[in-house]
Amino acid sequence: MTLTHAYAAQSATTPLAPFTFERRTPTARDVAIDILYCGVCHSDLHTAKSEWGPSAYPCVPGHEIVGRVSAVGAEVSKFKVGDFVGVGCMVDSCQHCQPCADGLEQYCDNGMTGTYNSEEQVSRANTLGGYSDHIVVFEKFVLKISHDEKALAAVAPLLCAGITLYSPLRQWQAGPGKKVGIVGLGGLGHMGVKIAAAMGAHVVLCTTSPGKSEDAKRLGAKEVVVSKNADEMARHLASFDLIVNTVAVAHDLDPFIQLLKLDGTLVLVGAPGTPHPSPGVFGLITKRRRIAGSMIGGIPETQEMLDFCAKHGIVSDIESIRMAQINTAYERMLKSDVKYRFVIDMATVEEPVAA
Amino acid sequence: MTLTHAYAAQSATTPLAPFTFERRTPTARDVAIDILYCGVCHSDLHTAKSEWGPSAYPCVPGHEIVGRVSAVGAEVSKFKVGDFVGVGCMVDSCQHCQPCADGLEQYCDNGMTGTYNSEEQVSRANTLGGYSDHIVVFEKFVLKISHDEKALAAVAPLLCAGITLYSPLRQWQAGPGKKVGIVGLGGLGHMGVKIAAAMGAHVVLCTTSPGKSEDAKRLGAKEVVVSKNADEMARHLASFDLIVNTVAVAHDLDPFIQLLKLDGTLVLVGAPGTPHPSPGVFGLITKRRRIAGSMIGGIPETQEMLDFCAKHGIVSDIESIRMAQINTAYERMLKSDVKYRFVIDMATVEEPVAA
Repeated sequence: MTLTHAYAAQSATTPLAPFTFERRTPTARDVAIDILYCGVCHSDLHTAKSEWGPSAYPCVPGHEIVGRVSAVGAEVSKFKVGDFVGVGCMVDSCQHCQPCADGLEQYCDNGMTGTYNSEEQVSRANTLGGYSDHIVVFEKFVLKISHDEKALAAVAPLLCAGITLYSPLRQWQAGPGKKVGIVGLGGLGHMGVKIAAAMGAHVVLCTTSPGKSEDAKRLGAKEVVVSKNADEMARHLASFDLIVNTVAVAHDLDPFIQLLKLDGTLVLVGAPGTPHPSPGVFGLITKRRRIAGSMIGGIPETQEMLDFCAKHGIVSDIESIRMAQINTAYERMLKSDVKYRFVIDMATVEEPVAA
Repeated sequence: MTLTHAYAAQSATTPLAPFTFERRTPTARDVAIDILYCGVCHSDLHTAKSEWGPSAYPCVPGHEIVGRVSAVGAEVSKFKVGDFVGVGCMVDSCQHCQPCADGLEQYCDNGMTGTYNSEEQVSRANTLGGYSDHIVVFEKFVLKISHDEKALAAVAPLLCAGITLYSPLRQWQAGPGKKVGIVGLGGLGHMGVKIAAAMGAHVVLCTTSPGKSEDAKRLGAKEVVVSKNADEMARHLASFDLIVNTVAVAHDLDPFIQLLKLDGTLVLVGAPGTPHPSPGVFGLITKRRRIAGSMIGGIPETQEMLDFCAKHGIVSDIESIRMAQINTAYERMLKSDVKYRFVIDMATVEEPVAA
């Protein structure tokens, strides 16, 4: 057992505050990790506040984890003490179904084990996430990080935001000769622009904010379309192979469906609290267009993504915060006041709250 | 020019009535066809009544055409006088865009030329359809029919209803080892059951009518699910590779999305007048499911479908009518009182209306 310093919500209505608990003693196939950095995802906030249904409390959010291996179980061969590693949205899955066998653990037939607010496979204990200085994870769900050590804080958001975009971009074959739209330039969208550009696609950012144009181009977009401008949208009619929509607020999908060419796909990775207005059927039928959903990525694909990003020098654009600033960071996140991801420096977890 | 006997609507509010006009003199690449049979599609009724926007009048519907070649232009090599041929929903397309080059004329970038209520490519004249005893068609849009002559009336609905189901079943790889749902057992759905079964798929009919079970099994379905019965639906959760939804009335898609397994697709081939209620995003995201649209099929695929159906002895289940019965047939079609497609015997086109 390892005493772990963390921040937890004790109820849906209380702010995050210091909390200590014991992590399990590593089993033969576990990896024990000292957490260095943890990204701040919208899901953290939704879960801390029970906005996606009642959460279990105390709730320790955090699933964009980068750390250093502090111990490994007797049967662990892939990792050794001192390795830099990552942990994303999952820490386990049933390991018995076809999706698990196929490395698609996020679609586990029996439900993946989330890094927080989920039931452990064996003990059924509530999982506690990465807003903490230590974690113990089944080796299959630990990722190798080959980025330069100086980049580690900015690597953390790849574990959720990065893979959430990488997976659909791979699944629907973003690459040279393909015109790919990314809708929304936030934590997810800015990763999509970088990754799709590195894949060789012609990347177009669709945004409601004309002010984001310069930043989008710096990140790799060849063009920017202000989606509220009908003339701009009309110039791109029926021209996209793929559009990945990161917007998690209900909005009209039809203008984006109209941008798809024959057999093009609109992939939804943001899940709004209320459904989007209903898309028209004629828009789909007349060009055999498709709408799809995609959720993070499997473990093999997450490793592939990390390796791809290391090779292409891709990290997240981040703002580093101290652990005690988390409640303020949530407030700013709700106002989209972050470019583009907060990352907690876990060395600060034991600092006094008033600091 | 050939004097042609037909039935036309003269306005959105008048019933179909006898009408004569001249077909164009065949050009070097045209095929002149004496029409023997024409199927009756819901689109005919929608167009005759301007229910999909204002139609051009006089309006001669009909795009499930089977006939015998009466003359061919000098450069026509694929057809000769006496051949049995078919004409479906298209009589031309731009022949310049990529979809046309790819044999996907239904998705022509410049708009396919419908068999009726459409503009001819050269003359821009309004096209007049198959409720007539003669038609002249560009050879590229004429299909060979290899079914037995006795089956010709029942072949006619393959030209629209048949290809509308065949194309998505092929596109999304219905076949052995695949569980395929067909939603709705009407003119489209009954073709879907027959064709998917012939492709070797495990076919399940989803219907709101428990009374259709026996018929569905006769047509080739292995199972029938009454979609209003939540227990029956629950037994099929997350088990379908593909569901083709033929229902053209707005309805809740979520129960069908929940039936799809990982990476499964719900294909919409029916276009309701008002959009379906909005499908939930979580249902798509949690299993990378897809919703798609599909519209008839291209000319090469339509020929492939006709050959496939001839080989497997597939025709439509039809009720033969006389031309003068068309208005009554429309009334019955609106009440779904047909198993499963009306086909007009065009030898009756000159019969007195009172007959």
